[in-house]
Amino acid sequence: MISANDPKLKSWVTIPKDSDFPIQNLPFGIFKTKYLSAVAGVAIGDHVLDLVYLHEHGYLDGLGLPSGIFNQKFLNDFLALGKKKIRQVRERVSVLLRHDSDELNAADREIALVPMEEVQMLLPVRIGNYTDFYSSEEHAFNVGSMFRDPKNALLPNWKHLPVGYHGRASSIVVSGIPIHRPKGQIKPSDSDIPIFCPTRKLDFELEVAFITCGENKLGQRITVDQAEDYIAGFVLFNDWSARDIQQWEYVPLGPFLSKNFGSTISPWIVTMDALEPFRVEGPAQHPHVLPYLAFEGNKNFDVMLEVLLQAEKSDPVTISRSNFKYMYWNVNQQLAHHTSNGCNIQVGDLYASGTISGPSPGSFGSMLELTWNGENPLNLPDGSIRSFIDDGDTLIMKGHAIRNGVRIGFGSCNGKILPST
Amino acid sequence: MISANDPKLKSWVTIPKDSDFPIQNLPFGIFKTKYLSAVAGVAIGDHVLDLVYLHEHGYLDGLGLPSGIFNQKFLNDFLALGKKKIRQVRERVSVLLRHDSDELNAADREIALVPMEEVQMLLPVRIGNYTDFYSSEEHAFNVGSMFRDPKNALLPNWKHLPVGYHGRASSIVVSGIPIHRPKGQIKPSDSDIPIFCPTRKLDFELEVAFITCGENKLGQRITVDQAEDYIAGFVLFNDWSARDIQQWEYVPLGPFLSKNFGSTISPWIVTMDALEPFRVEGPAQHPHVLPYLAFEGNKNFDVMLEVLLQAEKSDPVTISRSNFKYMYWNVNQQLAHHTSNGCNIQVGDLYASGTISGPSPGSFGSMLELTWNGENPLNLPDGSIRSFIDDGDTLIMKGHAIRNGVRIGFGSCNGKILPST
Repeated sequence: MISANDPKLKSWVTIPKDSDFPIQNLPFGIFKTKYLSAVAGVAIGDHVLDLVYLHEHGYLDGLGLPSGIFNQKFLNDFLALGKKKIRQVRERVSVLLRHDSDELNAADREIALVPMEEVQMLLPVRIGNYTDFYSSEEHAFNVGSMFRDPKNALLPNWKHLPVGYHGRASSIVVSGIPIHRPKGQIKPSDSDIPIFCPTRKLDFELEVAFITCGENKLGQRITVDQAEDYIAGFVLFNDWSARDIQQWEYVPLGPFLSKNFGSTISPWIVTMDALEPFRVEGPAQHPHVLPYLAFEGNKNFDVMLEVLLQAEKSDPVTISRSNFKYMYWNVNQQLAHHTSNGCNIQVGDLYASGTISGPSPGSFGSMLELTWNGENPLNLPDGSIRSFIDDGDTLIMKGHAIRNGVRIGFGSCNGKILPST
Repeated sequence: MISANDPKLKSWVTIPKDSDFPIQNLPFGIFKTKYLSAVAGVAIGDHVLDLVYLHEHGYLDGLGLPSGIFNQKFLNDFLALGKKKIRQVRERVSVLLRHDSDELNAADREIALVPMEEVQMLLPVRIGNYTDFYSSEEHAFNVGSMFRDPKNALLPNWKHLPVGYHGRASSIVVSGIPIHRPKGQIKPSDSDIPIFCPTRKLDFELEVAFITCGENKLGQRITVDQAEDYIAGFVLFNDWSARDIQQWEYVPLGPFLSKNFGSTISPWIVTMDALEPFRVEGPAQHPHVLPYLAFEGNKNFDVMLEVLLQAEKSDPVTISRSNFKYMYWNVNQQLAHHTSNGCNIQVGDLYASGTISGPSPGSFGSMLELTWNGENPLNLPDGSIRSFIDDGDTLIMKGHAIRNGVRIGFGSCNGKILPST
């Protein structure tokens, strides 16, 4: 067992009830304050622990960390040190924060612990490559039922390989950055030709993404068994989508402008290590997968997911509850498939799950599914209705795992939709 | 007119007959030698002009270039200075190389001019984002005829927008780097289930790509008229493709592992400035495009393209001759469309044209089209036949424009196929 995960551990830092960030979590991120520009930190309760300060004051000595490794705009160089080194830093931080440790002296505690309300979280990694999978059977089934044939909702390849496609890395932003409603070509059903206008079907997609901390050489692959050595951790991911643009543009080469106007991630990389206690079995895979996709053990994670919609001047309302454990294809299979042709992954890549829908209507991970393409609009408590996302709406995603009284959370993944420019 | 383009200019550097790199070209690249690791240079005849040496010895004074701008692994920081600055450097290098200039003294000429046989060319830019368009009507028509319906070969959206999709940036390599034949899932026509094996339909795609030197903010767009300020220049691009993997995987989200095992680019960025004299009108666009895609003037470029196949121990054989001018959608439209939803481009992005096929069978830009999916294999002079690419084959792409006795070339874009690992 990873010592930092011990459910009995307590910290001398006060951890509010239902905090996403107890001492068993210790996710990594990049933050800035009025006084600090872009430094690496670890979330603990309502505070951020400044890793630059710890490093510069000798608290991380003996770990063999390069000088300045945390004093950077992104975590890429730190992640490139590899999974073992990341684990050592997390273990060391855990020791420093234990209730029975006074190694971090009072004066340094005062400076190294920054209240969360005083920080602004930044994008944690410079994302080199971004891939989006399509790995929830329920989501693929719903979309296939809606747009093709409920009797043959899944395409023939779906149960043989984790379908995926390349997305746009440049437009991935961190939680809190607003997104403008995109314009694009849509073809109204009563017209022979398309028009160019703001999307009328702006949607979210509830996803979880993993971030990589290793590289394979072009031409060499990563097996299912090796995959976890390359995965640093996870973030929540909102794959904003414009359904009307998507419908017109996507044949034959896939989604493009319907997706690349923006995606939002939560700021904290929750390590795969922190999620170890929450491993569960995934859905049974029938037919049997090909040998290069076969795996043993529990590769899914029981992480409860929640989507809230907050209309301007209203309170947030939960519109979906799903779970990361519903994934048909697990991350080991995704990475093994992605590299099965020799494709090279790089440190700081982001690989998203695809929309995570559960079996019941309340667990669907997009407005498209929740309202069945607008057929059954949502009634919000403020009296308004939604088929898709309105200007001024803020979409909030949350996620956490609970076991033995320990709650490992992701913080939140927020994005507000502004009118078209 | 750009002075560096004057067709009457001669250089004191000997330019071999049919060189791709007369004084009117002056493309930028990154090279290394036994003594130099990764520095920026300009091609001139059979030599590379060392920009670091010029800069450090004061020959580029007055241009306001940051110190160390050319002493880098990639050209990104130089390109980020913007189109005007890139133009100033090219103009200045042109002056230094003119036959009537002795400003670059003999001793410095000796050191700054490195024979091409002593250099190894490297990837010119750190490619942040890579998009592949599908902008040749003949190619889209051929593929549509083969796999769908010759009477409705083009999908309904094709003439309304430049179809494109996101590709994989990490696996783009520079000319000369071999590529291993990828393995992947293919579904034989006589089987209900897929198998995992080396691709049996390895193909090339003849493309030209542009590289960007500017950025727009997320949410703001670049118009057709502004697009050229963001385009530094062009390279040849081989979008290696595995057709059998593609056919099985590509629904509904587009090509993925059939493409991302490797792409090859030529090493020299031929500036858009150098191609100014070769502007020509593109194909007429009917139906009329939407206003955001409307343009005036000549936006196509008359660049002759050639594809050669060299079997192991044989001489290269020309298998296709095409032309960049055949593009239905021009680069201005591609960039305007790409950003029409607010998608942000970054310096060092690569935007490829899609396979460039001409009207006649000898001008098709892929084996898929040249052999009509293997129905009419090519007979090579060495007695062998090819439906697709064999192990040991080297694929060579070349491109050049000629006018008024001036030949602006791209050098070559080579890749050898090695057996599966």
